[in-house]
Amino acid sequence: MLASALEVFVANGYVGTSTDQLAAAAAVSKQTLYRAFGDKKGVFAALIRAECDKIHDPFAPLVDDLRSAATAEEAVRQLAEQFARSIMASRIQKLRRLVIAEAARFPELGTLYWERGFLRMLASVARCLAVLDERGLLAVPAPELAAQQFAGMLLWIPSNQVMFTGGTVPVQDDDLQRVIDAGVAAFLLAYEPRSRSRPRTS
Amino acid sequence: MLASALEVFVANGYVGTSTDQLAAAAAVSKQTLYRAFGDKKGVFAALIRAECDKIHDPFAPLVDDLRSAATAEEAVRQLAEQFARSIMASRIQKLRRLVIAEAARFPELGTLYWERGFLRMLASVARCLAVLDERGLLAVPAPELAAQQFAGMLLWIPSNQVMFTGGTVPVQDDDLQRVIDAGVAAFLLAYEPRSRSRPRTS
Repeated sequence: MLASALEVFVANGYVGTSTDQLAAAAAVSKQTLYRAFGDKKGVFAALIRAECDKIHDPFAPLVDDLRSAATAEEAVRQLAEQFARSIMASRIQKLRRLVIAEAARFPELGTLYWERGFLRMLASVARCLAVLDERGLLAVPAPELAAQQFAGMLLWIPSNQVMFTGGTVPVQDDDLQRVIDAGVAAFLLAYEPRSRSRPRTS
Repeated sequence: MLASALEVFVANGYVGTSTDQLAAAAAVSKQTLYRAFGDKKGVFAALIRAECDKIHDPFAPLVDDLRSAATAEEAVRQLAEQFARSIMASRIQKLRRLVIAEAARFPELGTLYWERGFLRMLASVARCLAVLDERGLLAVPAPELAAQQFAGMLLWIPSNQVMFTGGTVPVQDDDLQRVIDAGVAAFLLAYEPRSRSRPRTS
């Protein structure tokens, strides 16, 4: 029911969506919908909450691979590919666009998704980077901050392109690959273990 | 007229905004509004186009400073502060939220803003980085790509926080400063001139 609701809300926006459409898309009666969710707002809130509940530590399955990766480059590339491609998946991009589009109407749901969706995914990346720090493959004293930078380098263009163009200018796989390659290279240089101390930034 | 239109659209969304509200906010009659813009869609389109028309090379005024900066750190910090704080200005964030929120309805205006607003600002940052490459303070063989990474490292969290929470969880100045400091440090390490070649990324 909620899977079909995402498609309907994304296609029509919150205001443009009717409970008739939501019920039809889910192949249930309006009575069933009202009983389960109360009203349109109830469906929307349940959708966002259900998406947040799915997200715990999505990149935990990578940790074993990262523990056995032979080089920092192999590990960082694996994390970058998995992270960037999973966030750029059409379903996640649609959800993000929907949450942002309705953030003025439902700031509490936007904030929920921010805290339990967006930041949790980032924390999961940070845990992966901490493994590479432990192994001495990288020097990452502040994994959460490094995870933000990693995400930003990989996703600033592809993700904003989808957000601003409403998905009408799709991200080409070649372009995503180029951003991933460059992000991996820059991240390795910024976080390679080095004897001299980092430049202090006052 | 368009300055007040931004506030009205941001507060109510496109669908929730009436031409009455737009005319009242601008202190003009509805007749005047219709004569100038046709209808609500006309006001919206004129607003986005006007914003795009303002953006040419916003960081060009920094180039003289970058040419005379004593160190890479001084130059990169100056660019980072100016770039991050100008993009995080409330007006730009509101405009970005509005464009994204209405991108499904008006993909052609979203794409216009993407190409003539978003990417132009980034190209302006790239020109600044090219100056630092010319001076030998940094090694930036692909300034556009480096500018994307720079922007992503600086803005991924603050900008998304505003987008997802609808501005209800404001970015604290301390947090922005921390992200800027860390972004400057990582960027310097990733792009410092070095004799050995960069790790190749297959």
